[in-house]
Amino acid sequence: MADQYARTGEDRCPSGIPVLRWEELPGGPALVLLDQTRLPAEEAELVCPDPSALVEAVRSLAVRGAPLLGIAGAYGVALAAARGFAVEEAAAELAGARPTAVNLAVGVRRAHTAYRDALAESGDPGRAAAAALTAARALHREDAEASARMAGHGLALLDELLPGGGHRILTHCNTGALVSGGEGTAFAVALAAHRAGRLRRLWVDETRPLLQGARLTAYEASRHDMAYTLLTDNAAGSLFAAGAVDAVLIGADRVAADGSVANKVGSYPLAVLARYHHVPFIVVAPVTTVDPGTPDGGSIEVEQRPGCEVTEVTSPWVRKTGAGGGIPVAPLGAQAYNPAFDVTPPELVTAIVTEEGAVSPVTAEALVELCARSRQVTMS
Amino acid sequence: MADQYARTGEDRCPSGIPVLRWEELPGGPALVLLDQTRLPAEEAELVCPDPSALVEAVRSLAVRGAPLLGIAGAYGVALAAARGFAVEEAAAELAGARPTAVNLAVGVRRAHTAYRDALAESGDPGRAAAAALTAARALHREDAEASARMAGHGLALLDELLPGGGHRILTHCNTGALVSGGEGTAFAVALAAHRAGRLRRLWVDETRPLLQGARLTAYEASRHDMAYTLLTDNAAGSLFAAGAVDAVLIGADRVAADGSVANKVGSYPLAVLARYHHVPFIVVAPVTTVDPGTPDGGSIEVEQRPGCEVTEVTSPWVRKTGAGGGIPVAPLGAQAYNPAFDVTPPELVTAIVTEEGAVSPVTAEALVELCARSRQVTMS
Repeated sequence: MADQYARTGEDRCPSGIPVLRWEELPGGPALVLLDQTRLPAEEAELVCPDPSALVEAVRSLAVRGAPLLGIAGAYGVALAAARGFAVEEAAAELAGARPTAVNLAVGVRRAHTAYRDALAESGDPGRAAAAALTAARALHREDAEASARMAGHGLALLDELLPGGGHRILTHCNTGALVSGGEGTAFAVALAAHRAGRLRRLWVDETRPLLQGARLTAYEASRHDMAYTLLTDNAAGSLFAAGAVDAVLIGADRVAADGSVANKVGSYPLAVLARYHHVPFIVVAPVTTVDPGTPDGGSIEVEQRPGCEVTEVTSPWVRKTGAGGGIPVAPLGAQAYNPAFDVTPPELVTAIVTEEGAVSPVTAEALVELCARSRQVTMS
Repeated sequence: MADQYARTGEDRCPSGIPVLRWEELPGGPALVLLDQTRLPAEEAELVCPDPSALVEAVRSLAVRGAPLLGIAGAYGVALAAARGFAVEEAAAELAGARPTAVNLAVGVRRAHTAYRDALAESGDPGRAAAAALTAARALHREDAEASARMAGHGLALLDELLPGGGHRILTHCNTGALVSGGEGTAFAVALAAHRAGRLRRLWVDETRPLLQGARLTAYEASRHDMAYTLLTDNAAGSLFAAGAVDAVLIGADRVAADGSVANKVGSYPLAVLARYHHVPFIVVAPVTTVDPGTPDGGSIEVEQRPGCEVTEVTSPWVRKTGAGGGIPVAPLGAQAYNPAFDVTPPELVTAIVTEEGAVSPVTAEALVELCARSRQVTMS
């Protein structure tokens, strides 16, 4: 199995953390996932030998993060085909496992289209299954490549903005290998700075309510031996006031046509603090995150999540006790406001870094140009 | 016992929550505390029949909050005297139970001085014990009165700043009856607005790391049937952006001579957000919080607390599992930055409301005048 893992270069997460991999088991292939619900308490793998197991893993958040969900979805179709399940049905089930992750449906569609085309052409289910797997691996590889290019462009921008080196970077939520086929978005830039010897400190916001910073970014940073320090989201203001933040780096869930950035809740307050303290606020995301169909920040629908994520805290070390599956920290019955994302207007964003380069200042015109360039690259 | 509680008006917390009370038990008097470490999971009382039990309660945070600690300290001296313990020794032990809470030592000193003066005058330990209890009750009553006056001044200021009524107030940490002999500071203003029918919504920041907002402010708000909603500290920015915050009300741990305000970490980011959104940022604190000996914000020493408060979460529903006594939420061994307070410069503070009235704009001159007025009142 280790050999197989080593041989399929495109399945290998560049960070060394096997977040997701295709594995040839004696009974047939399987998708093996790092179970993110158990991080950082333990690095446990979850073997999905069939599409239903993968759907369950997506729903339980064992695998999460928009780009990675797309890759998982594509492999899921390949798995259904290779194991002889009904591919149409499996693709529909996979694509609908989580409704808000557009990437999931896109990844599923890509492998499914490859499967159908190959089947129509050859009439051979074995060849069609191989085509689906090739498509999944291509998506996986492309995402890894995009990560690497974002990291390069991001580091170049940092060095330009902060010529002295010794960057002290504040980040929010989790944007590393755990959400990507490669090393991620914002985290990948910090990692590149670390490898280049130019990261002085990575400040990691814990990112309530789901604590992706404390649980996942701290885990990734420690795996890479980065100089990192965890803090409550509340303490970021003290760092800015002390002049201890040189740049903020975050990811994005959607970028509207005007450059408004939807990202994990807590990003907008950081953007306001960064502006008040004249600190660059940099968004790192693949070009596919730019959504020309959403004209502006006000048009972005912000997902409201259950209040129990606020009134309870989840820890991978302690089993559920509260009604919402976590550990209660508020009066029973307390109502909570729990937007999953917030929206930062373009005037507070210093730059958006993509695999096609950085956009700064962030304007609608610059984004149109970026998307056009991206299409040219894709079509060439 | 209930009779005794009803009879001693000054021991009664105006909110109806018996946070701390003097009780005549068959074996002698005792100080009965609402155990704050168990809130909001349960309203359990802790009976302290001797000074050592009270010292333990202070150390374990069963009783907390600067003004309330002063009151508890004063009653502790009265308890030692009434129960025949060595009063000098008990006073020293109580005053040193927590080093940073100045109010604790001040409260102890007040009751201790009353005890010594009465003993020197009458030579009767019984009379001296009664004098200590009278001093404790006077401190308790004065603190309650200061709360009520702050609430009145604060509500008048709100009504002046926001003539439309229907106030939507954002608050941080816990500043209600649980930290005071009365109804608190900032929370008391929100409560006054609620009683006057002019509170549309109290937005309660959960206040990581120790979650005093989620655990204690939500508890107090629900006890008063206030229209409140809990949120992660991260989500405050979304409320400002949506225009859903009319004013921010917070307490203070220390106000420097220039008007810089030290308060629970997370206050400063709210001040920056409030400024960016043109929302009044109001500090509510008794005059004794103004420290003329601290010239400016840079001179305020900010307590750095153990990282385990960040890497672990405490819930009164779940017993300890981590090394720090909480539930782990980060990789074991993760380092954390954990300042207990932050400092907001006077230019971001719209007003400081005290029992002697409001200061706005906040300037060194205005604070000097306020303190002079306060001394006149005290001396009259």
